[in-house]
Amino acid sequence: MTYVFAFDHKHRKPPMSYKDLLGGKGANLAEMTSVLGLPVPPGFTISTDACRDYMYGGWPAGLDDEIAKQRAKLEKAMGKRIGDPADPLLVSVRSGAKFSMPGMMDTVLNLGLNDESVEGLAKNTDERFAYDSYRRFIAMYARIVQGVDGEPFEHLLETAKEWDGVTADSEVTAETLRRLCLRYKEVVARSTGQPFPQDPTAQLRGAVEAVFKSWGGARAVAYRNREKISHDLGTAVNVQAMVFGNRDENSGTGVGFTRNPSTGEDKPYGDFLVNAQGEDVVAGIRNTEPLDTMGKKFPKIHKELLAIFDRLEKHYSDMCDTEFTIEQGKLWMLQTRVGKRTGVAALRMAVEMTEQKGWKISKDEAIQRVTADHLDSVLHPQFSAGAAFHVLTTGLAASPGAAVGKVYFTADDAVDAVERGEAVILVRNETSPEDVHGMAVAEGILTAKGGLVSHAAVVARGWGKPAVCGAEQVKITGKQFHVGGTIVKEGEVISLDGSTGQVVVGAVDLTVGTTPPEFDLILGWADAIRKGGKGVRGLKVRANADNGPDATRAREFGAEGIGLCRTEHMFLGEDRLPIVRAMILADTPAEEAAALEQLRVAQKADYIEILEAMDGLPVTVRLLDPPLHEFLPNVEDLAIKQATQGLDADETELLAAARSWHEVNPMLGTRGVRLGVVKPGLYEMQVRALMEAAAERKKAKGNPIVEIMIPLTISRDELGLARGWVESAIAEAKVKGVDVTIGTMIEVPRAALLADEVAEHADFFSFGTNDLTQMALGFSRDDIEGRIMAPYVEQGLLKANPFDTLDQAGVGQLVSMAAERGRATKPDLKLGVCGEHGGDPESIYFFYGAGLDYVSCSPFRVPIARLAAAQAVLGAGKASDTR
Amino acid sequence: MTYVFAFDHKHRKPPMSYKDLLGGKGANLAEMTSVLGLPVPPGFTISTDACRDYMYGGWPAGLDDEIAKQRAKLEKAMGKRIGDPADPLLVSVRSGAKFSMPGMMDTVLNLGLNDESVEGLAKNTDERFAYDSYRRFIAMYARIVQGVDGEPFEHLLETAKEWDGVTADSEVTAETLRRLCLRYKEVVARSTGQPFPQDPTAQLRGAVEAVFKSWGGARAVAYRNREKISHDLGTAVNVQAMVFGNRDENSGTGVGFTRNPSTGEDKPYGDFLVNAQGEDVVAGIRNTEPLDTMGKKFPKIHKELLAIFDRLEKHYSDMCDTEFTIEQGKLWMLQTRVGKRTGVAALRMAVEMTEQKGWKISKDEAIQRVTADHLDSVLHPQFSAGAAFHVLTTGLAASPGAAVGKVYFTADDAVDAVERGEAVILVRNETSPEDVHGMAVAEGILTAKGGLVSHAAVVARGWGKPAVCGAEQVKITGKQFHVGGTIVKEGEVISLDGSTGQVVVGAVDLTVGTTPPEFDLILGWADAIRKGGKGVRGLKVRANADNGPDATRAREFGAEGIGLCRTEHMFLGEDRLPIVRAMILADTPAEEAAALEQLRVAQKADYIEILEAMDGLPVTVRLLDPPLHEFLPNVEDLAIKQATQGLDADETELLAAARSWHEVNPMLGTRGVRLGVVKPGLYEMQVRALMEAAAERKKAKGNPIVEIMIPLTISRDELGLARGWVESAIAEAKVKGVDVTIGTMIEVPRAALLADEVAEHADFFSFGTNDLTQMALGFSRDDIEGRIMAPYVEQGLLKANPFDTLDQAGVGQLVSMAAERGRATKPDLKLGVCGEHGGDPESIYFFYGAGLDYVSCSPFRVPIARLAAAQAVLGAGKASDTR
Repeated sequence: MTYVFAFDHKHRKPPMSYKDLLGGKGANLAEMTSVLGLPVPPGFTISTDACRDYMYGGWPAGLDDEIAKQRAKLEKAMGKRIGDPADPLLVSVRSGAKFSMPGMMDTVLNLGLNDESVEGLAKNTDERFAYDSYRRFIAMYARIVQGVDGEPFEHLLETAKEWDGVTADSEVTAETLRRLCLRYKEVVARSTGQPFPQDPTAQLRGAVEAVFKSWGGARAVAYRNREKISHDLGTAVNVQAMVFGNRDENSGTGVGFTRNPSTGEDKPYGDFLVNAQGEDVVAGIRNTEPLDTMGKKFPKIHKELLAIFDRLEKHYSDMCDTEFTIEQGKLWMLQTRVGKRTGVAALRMAVEMTEQKGWKISKDEAIQRVTADHLDSVLHPQFSAGAAFHVLTTGLAASPGAAVGKVYFTADDAVDAVERGEAVILVRNETSPEDVHGMAVAEGILTAKGGLVSHAAVVARGWGKPAVCGAEQVKITGKQFHVGGTIVKEGEVISLDGSTGQVVVGAVDLTVGTTPPEFDLILGWADAIRKGGKGVRGLKVRANADNGPDATRAREFGAEGIGLCRTEHMFLGEDRLPIVRAMILADTPAEEAAALEQLRVAQKADYIEILEAMDGLPVTVRLLDPPLHEFLPNVEDLAIKQATQGLDADETELLAAARSWHEVNPMLGTRGVRLGVVKPGLYEMQVRALMEAAAERKKAKGNPIVEIMIPLTISRDELGLARGWVESAIAEAKVKGVDVTIGTMIEVPRAALLADEVAEHADFFSFGTNDLTQMALGFSRDDIEGRIMAPYVEQGLLKANPFDTLDQAGVGQLVSMAAERGRATKPDLKLGVCGEHGGDPESIYFFYGAGLDYVSCSPFRVPIARLAAAQAVLGAGKASDTR
Repeated sequence: MTYVFAFDHKHRKPPMSYKDLLGGKGANLAEMTSVLGLPVPPGFTISTDACRDYMYGGWPAGLDDEIAKQRAKLEKAMGKRIGDPADPLLVSVRSGAKFSMPGMMDTVLNLGLNDESVEGLAKNTDERFAYDSYRRFIAMYARIVQGVDGEPFEHLLETAKEWDGVTADSEVTAETLRRLCLRYKEVVARSTGQPFPQDPTAQLRGAVEAVFKSWGGARAVAYRNREKISHDLGTAVNVQAMVFGNRDENSGTGVGFTRNPSTGEDKPYGDFLVNAQGEDVVAGIRNTEPLDTMGKKFPKIHKELLAIFDRLEKHYSDMCDTEFTIEQGKLWMLQTRVGKRTGVAALRMAVEMTEQKGWKISKDEAIQRVTADHLDSVLHPQFSAGAAFHVLTTGLAASPGAAVGKVYFTADDAVDAVERGEAVILVRNETSPEDVHGMAVAEGILTAKGGLVSHAAVVARGWGKPAVCGAEQVKITGKQFHVGGTIVKEGEVISLDGSTGQVVVGAVDLTVGTTPPEFDLILGWADAIRKGGKGVRGLKVRANADNGPDATRAREFGAEGIGLCRTEHMFLGEDRLPIVRAMILADTPAEEAAALEQLRVAQKADYIEILEAMDGLPVTVRLLDPPLHEFLPNVEDLAIKQATQGLDADETELLAAARSWHEVNPMLGTRGVRLGVVKPGLYEMQVRALMEAAAERKKAKGNPIVEIMIPLTISRDELGLARGWVESAIAEAKVKGVDVTIGTMIEVPRAALLADEVAEHADFFSFGTNDLTQMALGFSRDDIEGRIMAPYVEQGLLKANPFDTLDQAGVGQLVSMAAERGRATKPDLKLGVCGEHGGDPESIYFFYGAGLDYVSCSPFRVPIARLAAAQAVLGAGKASDTR
């Protein structure tokens, strides 16, 4: 096995194909060197293989020899030797993993200096430059390679400046710097018990090993967990000849983009500094100049750079991000990669590179250059990139988008304030159906309790309204709240970002969510792709919507039907709740029937609205699912009232019912189709209302397409029984010419395991991946997300929050198994997913791979799902294994 | 396909091999006829194929022809024709399924009588006999075949007796019986609109169809659900020439066993009546005579019968149950089958037939003749078979055995009563650790709330004490309870049966549980078999025990180690709870460490006791599993106290902690290894205590074998992390020479799905099938068993309560998958089960088939598990599919 490759190594394929082996930086350096022939300081890359072998078995045998060989080649190319007392070659040693991990791993610059070679450098450059480089190298090497505390070096530098009577590092004299090197070496010797290493070979090995080790450092591990990057990849190490932008006024350094990464405009964009090093540009100590100015100072080099930009963009077929240095009038390219961009820019570039003259990326390619985050950022307001703010507390990112407003603590106060013309953030411990009028007018919602499936979170997502939930540090008392010592009173302004969970005191600048013209164009391309055809399966996108307005909005966002209409949300309306309670409390079949009759009338009206909004598209109505105690008051509240004030007859009855329907684990209790077994009239009523609504729509020349869905099924016979109820209710309704199918949720592990049997009674399966995740992992979402999820994801026990991105290794097995077994029984079984994973791109790729026909998500995720579905169909968005 | 087989049909194999086809009764009749050549009234069997075809497609084509052919043969053999006006042949039409379903299906006797043939019968017998037979036939046929209400027939018979001025049916005159037949036929004509069928062919077809239909009758379906018999089997129908034990004083009828079914004694046993029909023996109207007496009255026939008994026993190699009739001096065998027996008898017969001279059933065979119910009945007291009682209410059968005692409502009252010398039944809404002293002295426990995993149920099973739990109709108010209108006050006597859940007012006679001498002998044979060997895998039996006394008892019952030691039970002791609470409430690491230190000392003492009791055998200790709120007081109680009386500082803190640790779905919350992640010091403390205990045992020359088990694992990395804690705690304890292995529960579906990965860090898997069932089916045991389980099992949506018998179709898939995948990673991975299914025979057969090394169950189930394990190894107890 070869571990080390020179930048100009002749690989069999273009170097960019070897990112696994060379890392992103190494592959790009090799590409620029050997394919594009650009001016890149020579060097070599130690592969990720070496890093992995090091991690599992220590320093690889043979690596020293390979490094020595490549070093000799490098020295020959540069005509200088590392550590040469006369004219030393200096090298940088930098990490470079397959995926960019900015700032997470270590770098050593100026390697090769020692007590002798520094003299050679001084002779060939100047003394101040040489000793400044040496003292920087000693400190950097000591900190990074030897683990020496950095503070004494800082302290000594401060003392040196005092001694010289100057304030800037750059003003310290050469003589003082020479002394500083001596003092620095003393610090090292004291701390390590060894003199500072003078042998360049030992220096190099030490630096390489330090980079290997930094892969396993705490920061790097945390970053990879957050970004879902595998810990097994390892990093490559790039050893490269140093060039110096800080040699003189004929030198400089800069970063440049081949087009504008903020707006997408097709115009090079960048920052430049004369007589400076790269870190000076990034650190923002000196004011940088735009690239245009560079054209005046270095017209030839500027022209050369723009020509390189042009070649890079054409070669990579995308916008590139570069770092470059001018050393005494010569341009060197230090790095390039395909650059990051904003959502607006991503959309504009993707379209322009497809349609612009001289470009020919395909629509397929364009689709793959836009991500969910890009779309999210144009759909929702966000905290402006440049905005400075102090985060007061962070809750759960419950509904994306940012909002600014004055805090109010009750729905009524919020409504009054909005009527006075104020922008409002509604702050509650948790919300209930009684708060809905306040939520409707608020800019954003903040709750102290509740998880991502709490009432506040679900309602907010449905409305596309920003919400931060479960911000546990927020303590509300009366008309104010505090977080630690900070008190926020009614009427004071806060900002919140429902994409990150951040809460900020005061107003933060927001970027407004505006969909640029390219938005619809790109999604139109996506739709065409995800239709499939010619032997390629398609993937449809539906929305989860529970009422007419939501259904209308979903259709505007491009939904091709409703994948989940939760009838329980209709039951929670202020006017409905008393009827639902009457049904639960009914003592006689007659009372129950009367309550069901009232519900039927109400439900029918709801269904008519939804079927109208989705006319001609399928609407999947899930029969009642939640445990009945959700419709009853809180036991504890009533029990306390009983103990203190006493209860009236109605309340006494309600308390008894609430106790009787109370469950230890309601998630695993009397809900779903089990309710149908306990209260058979219920499902019949719902189906009757639905069929009557469909009949009305037919009368109005509409085209209702109805799918009836049984929740929480666990066995063939159970589904057969429920299907029987549904079929008799359909038959009794005697509605003609309406297309009705009957299917089931697959949301309990047993149903997935026995999908072959369950399919006998199902026209379709819809995967309820929320509940399937809860049961397959034993994770009650309400309980786990607060206390357990963070440590589990941070410690890498789970690769991602399985409620955000499908746990493919576990839950995914059940989905694939059920899809396969269901289709074995019924080859044309329709398959969809209506859990929240239906709006997550990575999960969508998986679902497509598992053979699903559609995904369904909240209306505001529909554009993202359309894009991801197209990416899935293109096969580019291959589902990565999240184990 | 042939549907009908004469009793003397020449089958290719012995008729007993065709029970599937002929049903049990039909196969036995054919066996007696064609193999043994016994005097059986001839006839034929209509196969279960015909019944199945009838169920799915109506009356089978060709069946009429086959019946006609066989009927002709029968008539030829008997020299009489059915319906012959001169001398009619009468036949019986009886159901006969593969498995005996006593009284569940229909029978028609005396078929072939009509207005003409009754005269022929009268001529050949006597008039009274003929018309009595006819009126019985009309009523029976009308009720069973034609669905006519039976009441008018009863009423007419009463009127007839009044008319004749007699009281007994047998005293009604021939003349009156003749008139009664006319009136009966009028009833039929009025009810059906048709005259009573006179055509014997139509009569026969009607009767056969009625038997087919009775397979699907409500009683039969309910019975099969209870007995886990498949609804797809169908029943056979036996048509047989009638013989009459009630012809004269030279006739008679009886039932006989080839040995005593109550005691097992090797002596024929039975009841006999002169001049009577079979139903008279069963009905108990007349006093039957023992078989010995028969020897005096019918010495020749008695001798013939005993010879037949002998042949039957030898032929069937088992005790047989027979029905016989003597018609005018000739003996007829009407039925035989291997007979049911008591537990005591089963053990005695199995041993004697193995060891007795002239017998040679193998020990393997003997093992298979004893069932779990047989062992249960000798281990626990039960309601006596003959006892008459009225069931007040039925709760959950929470812990087997029966008890009688006076009811007391508090633990203290129970203790006082026992000190006065009373036998006590403790009645509570539910029990908690504070009731344990009362539970310890009670004969039995009755709770109104709580399921099969409630505190009361778990404790009672651990102690082998009868308990009925969750008897929801029991309403306790102060020192009395009522069920409907029945009030039971303190000190009144009740009886309960924890094997059936029955509660009875007053004292019911109990059979005492005493293990006969054959008990240990048979279990010894079982142990030898289940050791395996010669290429046959064995199956070990361990017990679930949480303290020294339980471990000792388990060992006495034959446990080969502890499969589950639940450390949380140690935490619930009155002296421990305050320490556990201190740990939960700790504000600082120091406070937490102090509490953990106190717990360590207490746990160490517990562990020493257990390791001593199980010296030389493996002890699996599960690290803390339950959610922490289980150790905190009830939120509602404290909240009410807060609202009414106010709380002191400690209580306020407890309330806050209880609220903070409260979970919506604790089953899926912060428990198991997740506790270790939240409170890492906890598991370390437990392992340290355990290792110190092992060290003490070593010092005392003991041989502790320790297995440490991590609960609720869901991923490889999580188990790796936990294993790391355990290993460092072991290393720190520095105990030498102790055999320690580290494994995990497989109780979350994801762990089963990813068992290949999880196995990397596990030395053993122990299947927690209770929780696996809860999560795979979405069944919270606490919530489901009351409201949902009954309708689900009754309606056949589930074949059995999946908490009693493993749901092989669903949960079983996960078990098999995990076993296979785990062993793919680690071929020598040890596999066991510690859910309650470990004590259920049918589940044990499955576990053996899935490759498990041991099962673990409560100490009192150990003998049953030993037997079932041997049966599993013998491969006889093949796991039936419970889908």
